[in-house]
Amino acid sequence: MNRIITISREFGSGGRTIGQKVAERLGIPCYDQDLLDRIADESGLTKEYIEERTENTKRSWFANAFADRSLRSMSTQDYVWSIQKKIVLDVAEKGPCVIIGRCADYILKDKADLLKVFITASVEDRAKRVVEKYGETGDAVEQRLREKDISRSSYYRFYTDVEWGICKNYDLSLNSGMIGIDRCVDIIVSMY
Amino acid sequence: MNRIITISREFGSGGRTIGQKVAERLGIPCYDQDLLDRIADESGLTKEYIEERTENTKRSWFANAFADRSLRSMSTQDYVWSIQKKIVLDVAEKGPCVIIGRCADYILKDKADLLKVFITASVEDRAKRVVEKYGETGDAVEQRLREKDISRSSYYRFYTDVEWGICKNYDLSLNSGMIGIDRCVDIIVSMY
Repeated sequence: MNRIITISREFGSGGRTIGQKVAERLGIPCYDQDLLDRIADESGLTKEYIEERTENTKRSWFANAFADRSLRSMSTQDYVWSIQKKIVLDVAEKGPCVIIGRCADYILKDKADLLKVFITASVEDRAKRVVEKYGETGDAVEQRLREKDISRSSYYRFYTDVEWGICKNYDLSLNSGMIGIDRCVDIIVSMY
Repeated sequence: MNRIITISREFGSGGRTIGQKVAERLGIPCYDQDLLDRIADESGLTKEYIEERTENTKRSWFANAFADRSLRSMSTQDYVWSIQKKIVLDVAEKGPCVIIGRCADYILKDKADLLKVFITASVEDRAKRVVEKYGETGDAVEQRLREKDISRSSYYRFYTDVEWGICKNYDLSLNSGMIGIDRCVDIIVSMY
């Protein structure tokens, strides 16, 4: 089984940057936006639509659960999930890699030799990072962070029936705001 | 503010051993059973009674919440909590140290320079450890682990109003079964 690092992260915690740096240091691929491109390609849906559907803050997971399923047909969200699952399994078979998000830790359970990482940071540290990195401003930033956390958590819970962001579900969880991005990279690399 | 390492842990995860080894390596005290002794001394209650009351699986936190409080007097649990709080604050003022459990991460919030650590491990790994270390046997071990987790989590939640075992509440969470006790010690020491 290939050795794969999965990185789950709170929005703005720098998890993506950490994953990219880890992959670079280890000389293995890092799958992130690339996965979204592939899901879009395969599904025929736009990336924006997929992002909206897979991390949807407007409707709760409960509402989503019964939205299309009552018709006993596959919802668009389920359709995207099935493609996402196939693509994650596909890249995992190719060789050791880093995968950012996409419930890869759940999808690859028992199918790869996983190092499951979670990256967190305080709302203040994440807001600072989002403002610096993406140029977002205003009081709305912290609110958006919270909404994103709820979306990711709900989506994860809905498709995996496992809680997102719970220590027991990861091999390693790091507070990037407290530890620093580069030190997080060092720790993950040293554990691989 | 003194630099203090707090270790929260799932029962059987080796968190206590890790804390002791970290303290030894850093040449600072590790407070664990010692805290229980002091709480017993100061409260006049026996250690067994305190352990029963502070990690009580028989009554839910909800039942405990309304048990004595309806009389508007301090429950025994509240009494123990107030002494525990005082003692944790007291040892934290003495100098850098490691504190195992006792909601020290919450009690010392904003009162010390904390490195908040959580130690987890799979139920299988913990059961193995408990059998090896404490000689416990039988199918009851895994059940007991689950009960202990629920107790710790409920007690923590009741007195802190914060969730126990959630990545965002710790600087570092480690799966000791996957990483190994000694490697966990190395990582914590290197971060101090």
